Amino acid sequence: MQSKIHAGRFFEDFKLHEVIQHATPRTITAGDSALYIALTGARNPLHCSAPLAQALGYPATPVDDLLAFHIAFGKTVPDVSVNAVANLGYADVRFLQPVYVGDTLTTSSEVIGLKQNSSGKNGVVWVRSTTLNQQQQPVLSWVRWVMVQKRNHAAPAPETVIPELPEFVAPESLAVPANFKLHPDLATATAGKYWWDDYEVGECMRHPAGLTINESDHTLATHLYQNNARLHFDAHLMKSTPQGKRLVYGGVVISACRALSYEGLENAISIVAINGGTHANPSYAGDTIYCLTKVLDKWSLPHPELGALRLRMVGVKNMPPTTLENIKTTHGYHPHVVLDLDYTVLIPRKGN
Amino acid sequence: MQSKIHAGRFFEDFKLHEVIQHATPRTITAGDSALYIALTGARNPLHCSAPLAQALGYPATPVDDLLAFHIAFGKTVPDVSVNAVANLGYADVRFLQPVYVGDTLTTSSEVIGLKQNSSGKNGVVWVRSTTLNQQQQPVLSWVRWVMVQKRNHAAPAPETVIPELPEFVAPESLAVPANFKLHPDLATATAGKYWWDDYEVGECMRHPAGLTINESDHTLATHLYQNNARLHFDAHLMKSTPQGKRLVYGGVVISACRALSYEGLENAISIVAINGGTHANPSYAGDTIYCLTKVLDKWSLPHPELGALRLRMVGVKNMPPTTLENIKTTHGYHPHVVLDLDYTVLIPRKGN
Amino acid sequence: MQSKIHAGRFFEDFKLHEVIQHATPRTITAGDSALYIALTGARNPLHCSAPLAQALGYPATPVDDLLAFHIAFGKTVPDVSVNAVANLGYADVRFLQPVYVGDTLTTSSEVIGLKQNSSGKNGVVWVRSTTLNQQQQPVLSWVRWVMVQKRNHAAPAPETVIPELPEFVAPESLAVPANFKLHPDLATATAGKYWWDDYEVGECMRHPAGLTINESDHTLATHLYQNNARLHFDAHLMKSTPQGKRLVYGGVVISACRALSYEGLENAISIVAINGGTHANPSYAGDTIYCLTKVLDKWSLPHPELGALRLRMVGVKNMPPTTLENIKTTHGYHPHVVLDLDYTVLIPRKGN
Repeated sequence: MQSKIHAGRFFEDFKLHEVIQHATPRTITAGDSALYIALTGARNPLHCSAPLAQALGYPATPVDDLLAFHIAFGKTVPDVSVNAVANLGYADVRFLQPVYVGDTLTTSSEVIGLKQNSSGKNGVVWVRSTTLNQQQQPVLSWVRWVMVQKRNHAAPAPETVIPELPEFVAPESLAVPANFKLHPDLATATAGKYWWDDYEVGECMRHPAGLTINESDHTLATHLYQNNARLHFDAHLMKSTPQGKRLVYGGVVISACRALSYEGLENAISIVAINGGTHANPSYAGDTIYCLTKVLDKWSLPHPELGALRLRMVGVKNMPPTTLENIKTTHGYHPHVVLDLDYTVLIPRKGN
Repeated sequence: MQSKIHAGRFFEDFKLHEVIQHATPRTITAGDSALYIALTGARNPLHCSAPLAQALGYPATPVDDLLAFHIAFGKTVPDVSVNAVANLGYADVRFLQPVYVGDTLTTSSEVIGLKQNSSGKNGVVWVRSTTLNQQQQPVLSWVRWVMVQKRNHAAPAPETVIPELPEFVAPESLAVPANFKLHPDLATATAGKYWWDDYEVGECMRHPAGLTINESDHTLATHLYQNNARLHFDAHLMKSTPQGKRLVYGGVVISACRALSYEGLENAISIVAINGGTHANPSYAGDTIYCLTKVLDKWSLPHPELGALRLRMVGVKNMPPTTLENIKTTHGYHPHVVLDLDYTVLIPRKGN
Repeated sequence: MQSKIHAGRFFEDFKLHEVIQHATPRTITAGDSALYIALTGARNPLHCSAPLAQALGYPATPVDDLLAFHIAFGKTVPDVSVNAVANLGYADVRFLQPVYVGDTLTTSSEVIGLKQNSSGKNGVVWVRSTTLNQQQQPVLSWVRWVMVQKRNHAAPAPETVIPELPEFVAPESLAVPANFKLHPDLATATAGKYWWDDYEVGECMRHPAGLTINESDHTLATHLYQNNARLHFDAHLMKSTPQGKRLVYGGVVISACRALSYEGLENAISIVAINGGTHANPSYAGDTIYCLTKVLDKWSLPHPELGALRLRMVGVKNMPPTTLENIKTTHGYHPHVVLDLDYTVLIPRKGN
């Protein structure tokens, strides 16, 4: 009798252009949003005030961009990365339209690249994942690549195909909410005094607040996202690994940094793209996360009231970002740097 | 003046056939469901996808069977088991119809058995509890028995009445959802490849995932269920007990095992009965729970698209279930076994 | 270029009669209520049973009074107390009308008192805060005073104005729900046998249950309230303070005591006022909170079915309240007392 336990895909199981429909469609609820606030301390009023969202032209309160992203991403884990040796990167993450309470998200992934490593023991798989809502409209799209074990080292290597990926999502490709209209309530709701016009390329913000991640915080969050990667949950298993303990899911660190960087970016109301990112060092329960943000670029958009900022969000652990001099040293990342994320936000313009 | 603090019922306070109406009616919300996912990692799509639930013939998304059970059960604790020396067992647990967001659950218990112990210091009480929804329809029914202290050791012993309990809920007694219809979306939503036809009596699944229970995880869950048994919450009190620390509520372990056993039982969409169960050893924060499942029996049902599997779900702590050879030894349960639960699930048939 | 990070208001930034509109309007959801139950163990059925709330004359289920208060209060932190040396007290807290799921709360504060300290380094600021719902109806109003650092010690002292505050909210000022009607389901829903008529001034209840606060419990709660005071979240920062670790937000202790004091006050269905309160000693993760309640006064109200009890709720840590002889000693509070709160509840009368 065949085992009922599916061990997950190995490198030789991925075929170029194959489309994998991931399990666990998920209807987003008000409970998910409340938990996201409790788990992150998010204060962006677009996601917690129905009257404000409506004043800004949204039909209802969109849930936090990262809540939607982590739930969408979590679905891919059992099929894509459960046998991953390493999550190598992601790129071209596009937030195509808002997600509302009541929406049901499903995700599929197309294999767009394959490269067996010279050892013959594993290889790199690139997938483009797309998340649809219940009206079959795309709400999220992204590429990621992971190094996956081979089950059978003797299995033949596939033809090497390495996809071309944009360094960043070009401003003309950003999904700008056509119905957005600026409303004076936004300034009151965020208490932020700065708008697109006020930020300068090269500017650096060292956000003062820190967040210590407790063991339950990250496991509750990762479970909420239905991401079942074992290294976040199974302390007994992790005891015999080099880390010796459970690892914090990288998405938890991204959300912590996004919430911490609210002070200084109060009016950056939504994320439209993640251009790329590196989890430079692992995070564990007990680590205190801090964040600094650099403005990489600023773009006007085909909407008179909105601009975009391309930002570099750097997560630092167990030292305030004010004391970090160099994100990278000659040996690579500073040992306290845990995240180096390149992303793009929408932020209203000052107007006339 | 009489003390306003009610010390709870002692053995001599229970009268045969007395019906106790338990406090705290509870309206189930989307928040409860989101928390249940965060606390357990449950991925059964019937409980998190509204379109799937509707495609399968449900009017809305039913909440997880165990979420409903734990909330229903929690109501009985202040009246039945707050002075319990031991929770001895439960039997004949029937899941009579789905619970939906917006339903309000109330529980009552009838005393159906009494037996004073020979010591004269305590006795065993059997109760049959029934949970109704706001339309006064029964949604859950179960028997449990507990050993309860006497307040006054000189109180006369009641007549001994020991109820007859079924070894398991017979297939003809299972509540089969008449409106259920199989839909191809289920296979996509679970990614499970096995159906009723594929399981064999005697088959054993050793589920690979493990879940480490953090202190906040179990106390948040037990509070969510409004189960106020003190040994889960009061570390100061527990310091002076033999265990020395807070105990994890058994329902938390059952939910962990149910979620862990999803891998291999993806299409076992709902629980219709718990036939009996033993919490073989206590669990504490920090323990990592694993699970193995044995197929005890399989039954066809008066529904052309559904069958039932009677399963034995064994929870094991701090060792992977692949290394467990004997659940019981000559001295009783293996010291790492924490749960031995006999339950019945509904699972669609392959069809023709 | 000006720093985008707002350091918060210092003493000299507060002007008498200035009104500060606080950020982060918040729409209350069913997720908030579910989390509140999970975080506190609250069992008051008015807040978790829709049919009961309706039977008692409410249009829907009001959320827990303290959930609303903590969320309302949290909004004031970034503007009022982020540079506070000490939270000195609060008074005249009025619960003006119920808050329902779907309501959006906004808070503003008027500076009603100022007094520079003789050191010239800091001063005391009194604010009256008012929370409105989306219909611009006041739902909460309170005064608090904090000691705030000066940025510039040379800044001139403002004129000293110390507001007069009532010792307690007078019975004739309490907001009595006009539509409240007593219904027999309340007694079943609470299982409480005591009503307004049964309590006597001077009576003391030593509530038996204890609650150990885990690190995640208090940080999740404080984040849910969007209270961003750093001393609750940043363990790295707190390591170099005299406490050496994160402090538990006082509101978390108040909610724990309120939930613990349910046993003995089951029918005290809502809070109408907090007359004053002191956080006598700090609480930390790992502390077990207990509670005792003294009846300070009892008042009839202009509603035939409701009365009010003025209560003193005393939180004690790491010792059962049965062993506490004196709340205060000659040196001030007993070192295990963490909370001394004077508040007023509504409780139905027995009727005729």
